[in-house]
Amino acid sequence: MKRIEVIQNIMEANQTIAGRNQKLLNRHKIAAINIMSSPGSGKTSLILQTMARLKGRLNIGIIEGDVASTVDAEKVQSEAKAVVQINTRNMPESCSLMAAMIEPALQEMPLNDIDLILIENVGNLICPSEFVLGEHKRVVISSLPEGDDKPTKYPLIFVDAEAVIINKMDLLPYLDFDIAAFRRSISGLNPDAEIFELSCKTGVGIERWCSWLLQQAGSNPTDR
Amino acid sequence: MKRIEVIQNIMEANQTIAGRNQKLLNRHKIAAINIMSSPGSGKTSLILQTMARLKGRLNIGIIEGDVASTVDAEKVQSEAKAVVQINTRNMPESCSLMAAMIEPALQEMPLNDIDLILIENVGNLICPSEFVLGEHKRVVISSLPEGDDKPTKYPLIFVDAEAVIINKMDLLPYLDFDIAAFRRSISGLNPDAEIFELSCKTGVGIERWCSWLLQQAGSNPTDR
Repeated sequence: MKRIEVIQNIMEANQTIAGRNQKLLNRHKIAAINIMSSPGSGKTSLILQTMARLKGRLNIGIIEGDVASTVDAEKVQSEAKAVVQINTRNMPESCSLMAAMIEPALQEMPLNDIDLILIENVGNLICPSEFVLGEHKRVVISSLPEGDDKPTKYPLIFVDAEAVIINKMDLLPYLDFDIAAFRRSISGLNPDAEIFELSCKTGVGIERWCSWLLQQAGSNPTDR
Repeated sequence: MKRIEVIQNIMEANQTIAGRNQKLLNRHKIAAINIMSSPGSGKTSLILQTMARLKGRLNIGIIEGDVASTVDAEKVQSEAKAVVQINTRNMPESCSLMAAMIEPALQEMPLNDIDLILIENVGNLICPSEFVLGEHKRVVISSLPEGDDKPTKYPLIFVDAEAVIINKMDLLPYLDFDIAAFRRSISGLNPDAEIFELSCKTGVGIERWCSWLLQQAGSNPTDR
């Protein structure tokens, strides 16, 4: 077996705009969470479950990143305080949201009326790890059918996350997924990450996740 | 709901190198198949099942694309005629294989002894659609747990594929996946695509897929 590796020029950082986004969010005491995963891991389902549980407790704004289509934005529209759709199909980076896409999205939102912004990134385990958006916390969803080796194969996105969600726990009886092995991989890469086991289908585990979100939204923005 | 779209500069094509790769393959009468999917859809499992079924009938070379790790290459190593691992972690495009990565990989393989090369692309539904590698056929795997809306959300990769595999059919009883709706989406995007329903776990449907591969390997390279 031969290995071929090439050294990369570091991608142009979008730190400056991300910093500007975060200042704006802090001024409005809004917590922003960047939700990342493979396609079909359950980002939209998690957002729907979260909005249902936090109804009346937090005003939630949603930024939906998708290569194409507005199907996710349509699904979340009825419960959110505001929804902005970003389609990356014809952008220079179509495989991730970038801080420069979030900036105009924030301009479209009634920031005075929002406590929490959930950003659904583009379905991808690679590109989103390279771009901070101005968020306060980064969350990765990994679902059981994807297999327990994802942290080993896509380490970067797990290294930088404050929380990792193991979704589709309801499918555990039908799959060969080793939860302990997955948790060990996460601990090796990122020992401080919170880990949530849940099922967006049955609702099991959502409450603990929502408590964590409430904590994020309640913390002093200058401390975030 | 607001939509934000930005016009893209078309990504630099890597057509020239891809053309060179294909000429080299044709000279050696090798069929090359580019296998693309989300992380965890079953690319490696499909390759393992395929090698097991085609043992003694075709000599198969494998090119494994991964951001990091060699776990997939290790899994396929024992049955393949040759395996080359490409790690894209520090490359300018870490989210897809590119023709320029395939070219040196082909130099490492005993091309005279190979009939078929299966290229396992990086797990991603976005970037790989943008780079031809010199392959003769493009195959996308979509697995049931990802949901039936993937062609709508990631259309480009399905538009250009000669075949679409619906994997993890064994999970159908436990999921809300509408096979007819999925097939309709594919027909709308790409009416000529072959569709294979299969399960790498149970082996159901693998035989038909292998027949298709045998056909590709047997066809005259100049016609490909």
